[in-house]
Amino acid sequence: MPATRRQLLQLTAAAAAASAAPLLGQKLAAAMEAPVLQTALFSEPLRIESLDLLKAGPHYLVRARAAGLTGYSEAHSSVMGLAFPILLKRVIPNFVNKDARQLEHLFREAYIAQSNYKWQGLPFWVSMAAVEIAILDLLGHAARQPLGALLGKVTQREIGVYRASGNRGNSPEAEIAYLQKIVAEDGAAAIKYRLGARMRFDDASTRRDLALIPLTRKTFGDAMTIYADANGSYDVPTAIRTGRMMEAHGHRFFEEPVPFDHYDETREVTQALKIPIALGEEEMSLRGFRRIIEQGIADIVQPDLMYFGGLIRSIKVARMAAAAGLECTPHMSGGGLGYLYVAHFASCVPNAGPHQEYKGMDRTLPVTSATSPLKSVNGKLIVPTGPGLGVTIDPDFLKKATIVTL
Amino acid sequence: MPATRRQLLQLTAAAAAASAAPLLGQKLAAAMEAPVLQTALFSEPLRIESLDLLKAGPHYLVRARAAGLTGYSEAHSSVMGLAFPILLKRVIPNFVNKDARQLEHLFREAYIAQSNYKWQGLPFWVSMAAVEIAILDLLGHAARQPLGALLGKVTQREIGVYRASGNRGNSPEAEIAYLQKIVAEDGAAAIKYRLGARMRFDDASTRRDLALIPLTRKTFGDAMTIYADANGSYDVPTAIRTGRMMEAHGHRFFEEPVPFDHYDETREVTQALKIPIALGEEEMSLRGFRRIIEQGIADIVQPDLMYFGGLIRSIKVARMAAAAGLECTPHMSGGGLGYLYVAHFASCVPNAGPHQEYKGMDRTLPVTSATSPLKSVNGKLIVPTGPGLGVTIDPDFLKKATIVTL
Repeated sequence: MPATRRQLLQLTAAAAAASAAPLLGQKLAAAMEAPVLQTALFSEPLRIESLDLLKAGPHYLVRARAAGLTGYSEAHSSVMGLAFPILLKRVIPNFVNKDARQLEHLFREAYIAQSNYKWQGLPFWVSMAAVEIAILDLLGHAARQPLGALLGKVTQREIGVYRASGNRGNSPEAEIAYLQKIVAEDGAAAIKYRLGARMRFDDASTRRDLALIPLTRKTFGDAMTIYADANGSYDVPTAIRTGRMMEAHGHRFFEEPVPFDHYDETREVTQALKIPIALGEEEMSLRGFRRIIEQGIADIVQPDLMYFGGLIRSIKVARMAAAAGLECTPHMSGGGLGYLYVAHFASCVPNAGPHQEYKGMDRTLPVTSATSPLKSVNGKLIVPTGPGLGVTIDPDFLKKATIVTL
Repeated sequence: MPATRRQLLQLTAAAAAASAAPLLGQKLAAAMEAPVLQTALFSEPLRIESLDLLKAGPHYLVRARAAGLTGYSEAHSSVMGLAFPILLKRVIPNFVNKDARQLEHLFREAYIAQSNYKWQGLPFWVSMAAVEIAILDLLGHAARQPLGALLGKVTQREIGVYRASGNRGNSPEAEIAYLQKIVAEDGAAAIKYRLGARMRFDDASTRRDLALIPLTRKTFGDAMTIYADANGSYDVPTAIRTGRMMEAHGHRFFEEPVPFDHYDETREVTQALKIPIALGEEEMSLRGFRRIIEQGIADIVQPDLMYFGGLIRSIKVARMAAAAGLECTPHMSGGGLGYLYVAHFASCVPNAGPHQEYKGMDRTLPVTSATSPLKSVNGKLIVPTGPGLGVTIDPDFLKKATIVTL
């Protein structure tokens, strides 16, 4: 680059480096590199004999088989309906006939193989996540351990949840009634509702915002933990104004105040407000999360366990967050067994935050567990203790499934 | 966030802001916002009656129809074989029955609709690009103007190209022989070859690198423009060492010295070297390019016209680059009509750089042009002057095409 511009930028970089903490950078790099899977649990190789995508009704499942054992994941069916060619051609071939214990290594290799890194994004990472979780379920059966024990130390079995409303455009009164209804369903001690108009705001959404912020607190009282998600709706001044009102009414976090890739603006909002700013649903790169954490862009990081490529990658984000004293509360994109993945994640991640996202259980996928009711009771999900995911999928349902090909 | 950490980050931000150029930020924001499509060319609405994905042999085409006119794009067939569900369900529905003149507006809306922004990535943007180019071809037929005239002012019709080799792992001698062969095919005055081992390097790749860098210059002489692409292979010290050798042998740019999302490390390499650093094939966000340009991360930005979502978005990147005095040389991911898209882009983008990527023409897709030989001759591609893309697809070939459904 030209000398003058280079000098100017070097000055800037020097100023930043002098005041930033290089130690944090080293800690984050170490957290990103450290292995997650507890390979010491396995004394013998476990060759993955087959990996198949199954379809049964609207549901997509990934099935992993090895040594007479079977692992399953629910493959985020609404995404998989569009992503299955990527799963079949760019993901599965990198895992078949490999040793399941090498999962982390296989993951890194699959990211580079076929130039897959160019495809990184929601459909690729959901495919990788579906394969990862099926293999983890398989490994759990091999080691007779629940997922949390494969990925760390299980420190809690009762996971606090928040009930999230997906509504926008309804009246404040209608939204309050809806929130009351879902809270009544399972006695959740925390709620999340939506602000703005998704990636934009207008007069109608602003009127709704201004009414809902005080009304949620007034309705649910001081004991309720209240979160809100703007889905990138605001500009910086509006985000700050809205955030101050949320602070005045004791809200606990403010998700995506401005569009997700407006990092500088998100940081401005984070620096201006006391309420923690949450971000990360759209983040596709471990390096991206490292930057968010290192540069103080947000206070709470939120990898989506499926969109971001599974539990192991998300635990790496949580470890980076821990190194900076931050929480990592995963985003949960709904449906299928997502609530179960989040529960296993929180069972072994100390900084997962007090409440995990819960959108209700998908009752069309017939799973049972001997060690958990598989639903939120009194605002808590019990993490199954059986091997792997700790659930059994109805064999009659599985019999109806067909293998998806392209 | 906690007060001490916030204060520290505010200090850093203040230091950065004081030495960086706020004017550049304003210019980049303006370049990103300014319209590209020359809507003044159209006096009447042009309602898109249908948008179809066609398949003929291995080829995928998008066909746009309106008012008796038809526009086509080749839809990056190797990608579309895996991305077609996304094209069909998340992209096409946002354009049908809309006014084609509103293309830029429709694009912004389609990015937000169905929460598509969460899907941003190669398969989504290739789908958007395929639709955009088919609509541009349609608009070109309506206005009787070539693509370049719809998107700006056509300033050149003869586009210099570089021949890119995709080889790795062969001997330096074999690679030199291959480069000589492709240069002889069309008399290109510029070449690009590959360094490293793709997202990694080892002893064998390093030996090949160290031999090829001087050997390319020695073989092709001082008149040849030489580029090289490391595809993210190196760490910072190796990238700097390799770059210095490239400087000593007069190479013109050094593409992706370190992994693409290692922005801080890329900037270190950019600041340490005189040879321009090129980056951008994997960039999926306009904001991402703005950051690369604003923070001096690279010297040459390289949106892939398909991966990044088409010509209009890429021209916005070129305009941002121009505001910072940089070149924008698009990446071309090969096959189909990619060479033609690049030629139209360069015809109306003054800072497109002296040579565009050219991987040879795909001779299995039967297209003809009355105004261009549609291949590089003496290292130059002639941009067709007919309406839209300026080519005709063989009607017999189109007759064999079937409409893809999901």
